[in-house]
Amino acid sequence: MLTELDLNYIKKSFTFWDKLSTKEKELIELNTTKVTYHKGYNLHNADSECLGVLLILSGELRIYILSEDGREVTLYRLNAGDTCVLSASCILNSITFDVHIDAEIDTEVYLTNIKTFSTLSNQNVYVENFAYKNTVERFSDVMWAMEQILFLSIDKRLAIFLFDEINKNNNDIITLTHEQIAKYIGSAREVVSRMLKVFQSQDILELSRGQIHITDKSKLRKLVQ
Amino acid sequence: MLTELDLNYIKKSFTFWDKLSTKEKELIELNTTKVTYHKGYNLHNADSECLGVLLILSGELRIYILSEDGREVTLYRLNAGDTCVLSASCILNSITFDVHIDAEIDTEVYLTNIKTFSTLSNQNVYVENFAYKNTVERFSDVMWAMEQILFLSIDKRLAIFLFDEINKNNNDIITLTHEQIAKYIGSAREVVSRMLKVFQSQDILELSRGQIHITDKSKLRKLVQ
Repeated sequence: MLTELDLNYIKKSFTFWDKLSTKEKELIELNTTKVTYHKGYNLHNADSECLGVLLILSGELRIYILSEDGREVTLYRLNAGDTCVLSASCILNSITFDVHIDAEIDTEVYLTNIKTFSTLSNQNVYVENFAYKNTVERFSDVMWAMEQILFLSIDKRLAIFLFDEINKNNNDIITLTHEQIAKYIGSAREVVSRMLKVFQSQDILELSRGQIHITDKSKLRKLVQ
Repeated sequence: MLTELDLNYIKKSFTFWDKLSTKEKELIELNTTKVTYHKGYNLHNADSECLGVLLILSGELRIYILSEDGREVTLYRLNAGDTCVLSASCILNSITFDVHIDAEIDTEVYLTNIKTFSTLSNQNVYVENFAYKNTVERFSDVMWAMEQILFLSIDKRLAIFLFDEINKNNNDIITLTHEQIAKYIGSAREVVSRMLKVFQSQDILELSRGQIHITDKSKLRKLVQ
């Protein structure tokens, strides 16, 4: 059962709320549950059934594509306050591709089940519009990732990633494996390891077991620009 | 001035037509013109003003991104009956990236100017929804292109392109330059030329000035699968 606090969070995020009938609002209230996905859990993949719409309360989801031989390319990440519609893509006919969605850390979401979302999207154009608009925002994220992967050299991509990471977390120490970083920036672990060593030799950072310590932010910033 | 025939084409393509008021329909009729863009013309780029919505009557538009050092990656192509909304992306806040749009051959379009489309999109949710839904369809095209570029080997990408091309045109002779093909599949001219020579040595095709003649379709099909 959702509390008043839960409902307020949902109303604020589902910008179509005011366009819903009383019945439609009830339908959401009755069919939305709080779910926790543990770190590493795969919420959605090409073969899985359609979950529904996810509204993130805390944590992080990573959305990526996967090649037949197991290579991953991260498209974008979602955090608290973000809504994930691609987990309901089966009901949106214009979406003909499939993505994978993992919980990067323990992640708490409000899940509105697929049947409810399908009903609402069919009968209320504002709900459908919300879903498409949200997807177009993600399209923008994907275009950004694509331009990075296709047009930027690996050293610049890695520098941008490290710079964003320390600013996001307000912490000069990054505790990600080289494998994880490679997935985020769409490269291979070997390439990331090699480039990190180059950065270390340039006194930009220090590598230690499971950690990257950024020791010279201004040098890193120069690489980003 | 649009003819009855023009209007019928527009009504069929603008699926929101029945949701427009009489005044809104008039607004479109008064602000839509038939325009011809000649082969090679650049309709839209990162610095250009927003044209409006294009409905293609005949011809072909190519939508691509361009790196700072001049590399192009084709995202998708649009043909007769397709609507191009990214040429009106300035009024859609969720779109934060920029594309380039060229006429690949002489191309005739109905152009609904940006002011009209902006007005309609703001006051009628069905128009806005049409724009977003159309953009999500293009998102699907881009994901397809991205998976090809990131995950497929160059020989497979080239084979798929050639196979699609002869089937689309119902003609075993392809009259595109290696440079053009490279742009379509997101590769370099040198790479395409080299791979075409490999295909020639495998008796799949014959190269001559400005032409590629597919001589063994079944061999090509095997490469595609």
